[in-house]
Amino acid sequence: MKIIEDIIEMQRYVTQLRWEGKIIGFVPTMGALHKGHLSLMEHAKNESDHVVVSIFVNPAQFGPKEDYKEYPRDMEGDTEKIAYVGVDTLFTPSVSAIYPEGYRTYIEVKDLSDVMCGRARPGHLRGVATVVLKLFNIVKPHKAFFGQKDFQQTVIIKKMVEDLNSDVDVVVLPTVREEDGLAMSSRNQYLGPEERKSATVLYRSLEEARLLFNKGERSAELLRYTIIKIFKSEPSVLLEYVAIVNPKTLEEVKEAEEGTVIALAARIGKTRLIDNIVL
Amino acid sequence: MKIIEDIIEMQRYVTQLRWEGKIIGFVPTMGALHKGHLSLMEHAKNESDHVVVSIFVNPAQFGPKEDYKEYPRDMEGDTEKIAYVGVDTLFTPSVSAIYPEGYRTYIEVKDLSDVMCGRARPGHLRGVATVVLKLFNIVKPHKAFFGQKDFQQTVIIKKMVEDLNSDVDVVVLPTVREEDGLAMSSRNQYLGPEERKSATVLYRSLEEARLLFNKGERSAELLRYTIIKIFKSEPSVLLEYVAIVNPKTLEEVKEAEEGTVIALAARIGKTRLIDNIVL
Repeated sequence: MKIIEDIIEMQRYVTQLRWEGKIIGFVPTMGALHKGHLSLMEHAKNESDHVVVSIFVNPAQFGPKEDYKEYPRDMEGDTEKIAYVGVDTLFTPSVSAIYPEGYRTYIEVKDLSDVMCGRARPGHLRGVATVVLKLFNIVKPHKAFFGQKDFQQTVIIKKMVEDLNSDVDVVVLPTVREEDGLAMSSRNQYLGPEERKSATVLYRSLEEARLLFNKGERSAELLRYTIIKIFKSEPSVLLEYVAIVNPKTLEEVKEAEEGTVIALAARIGKTRLIDNIVL
Repeated sequence: MKIIEDIIEMQRYVTQLRWEGKIIGFVPTMGALHKGHLSLMEHAKNESDHVVVSIFVNPAQFGPKEDYKEYPRDMEGDTEKIAYVGVDTLFTPSVSAIYPEGYRTYIEVKDLSDVMCGRARPGHLRGVATVVLKLFNIVKPHKAFFGQKDFQQTVIIKKMVEDLNSDVDVVVLPTVREEDGLAMSSRNQYLGPEERKSATVLYRSLEEARLLFNKGERSAELLRYTIIKIFKSEPSVLLEYVAIVNPKTLEEVKEAEEGTVIALAARIGKTRLIDNIVL
């Protein structure tokens, strides 16, 4: 596996690969890799000739009081996992290369960035959109792979790509879960044993809402109420929001329908987790 | 000359040209072409294998009370001029294709967009940056050519390209002027005969400041004072700003030096004109 740290070297390398007719698949990550990431890489392998994975913990998407410094980093372990999956190139730029002194350009995807996670984390989605556009310009992929767990992020990236006439094909793949349903996340490792058990309430409540929906319930108010009720049975978990939304506009719906997304965020101690399902 | 209106067709066409190893030169315009534009196209021809010119009057860079509707349009005359110069492809997208319903993604180049013209025209430079990035993603040029007359715009585009790791080479070429020094501009045609005469005050005042600088004057305050004094002799022309700035950061300097830029904007009746010189 080739490891590239330099931006210009990465650009030249993929330009050459494109020239040779190779289809480039790209999986951008912040490292601390779990099975969700590895599943994205497997998919990328199946759908492209050359897979690039990036590891970059993006300061622009963390708020000043958030866990940028504490965010788990394990370059050695990650490199092993990525090589094992059979990725072709690992791109590991430095923070000072991505955001050199005097950096001042940001991508704003209006409306979609202010709701849901954007409300609790102002600037977060601007930081995500900006780094993803930069990485797309560096890695020049034909296809890029994202997990559905970060649902709002995927909606914003798709909208950005569409609006800016970027011709990257954004592929969103299902959330990979632990056996008890907890969505895989690099932040799960923050959880103590008791917190880890309580954390299953995110998925349990979503599945309960899905069950109701499948039985014919369409009222978003009632679905939301069901989720809130289940969270009340886990008082150590603080529900931050439940959003029942149109999957493209992220606007709240009154009546759920097939394709409607239920997304939520919750805090367990200092750890903030998110999850979502598509009805 | 090939004329393309469709975005996807344009993307496919240039992808094919790039594949064939052609160097793509690009001149984005808002039409109403004058000798300044044509000079950019001539340069593009000399420095590339295939020249694309776009004509698109960009609503996102006009304020609600500005001259978007009145902005001169002459597609037929423009097409003739472009063909005469020997441009290979003319790209003429529609407004609804560039900004379809639900469009919501914008590029913000912080700090550089709030000063000078950005102060009088809030949102203007955001609109410029956004459409230029979109056009770059559609036309995929190796090199793009801009006139120095829109100095702040060129600084912002260069900064955006650098920050977003776009690998377009931004080439800025000297302002083309009428015989009496007035910078060529599509908006010059708004001027009545008397206004046209008064308009030379922009360049005259800049040249006077340059003369002083060449004689050894370095005080930005004094250079500014000289310009203001000359404008007072043309009371029909309203000076909006004089900025004596670092050419990269656009920060006001106290001491002018080689490379310092003096830029100004002025109103004559309803017409807003800009000009600048590099010391």
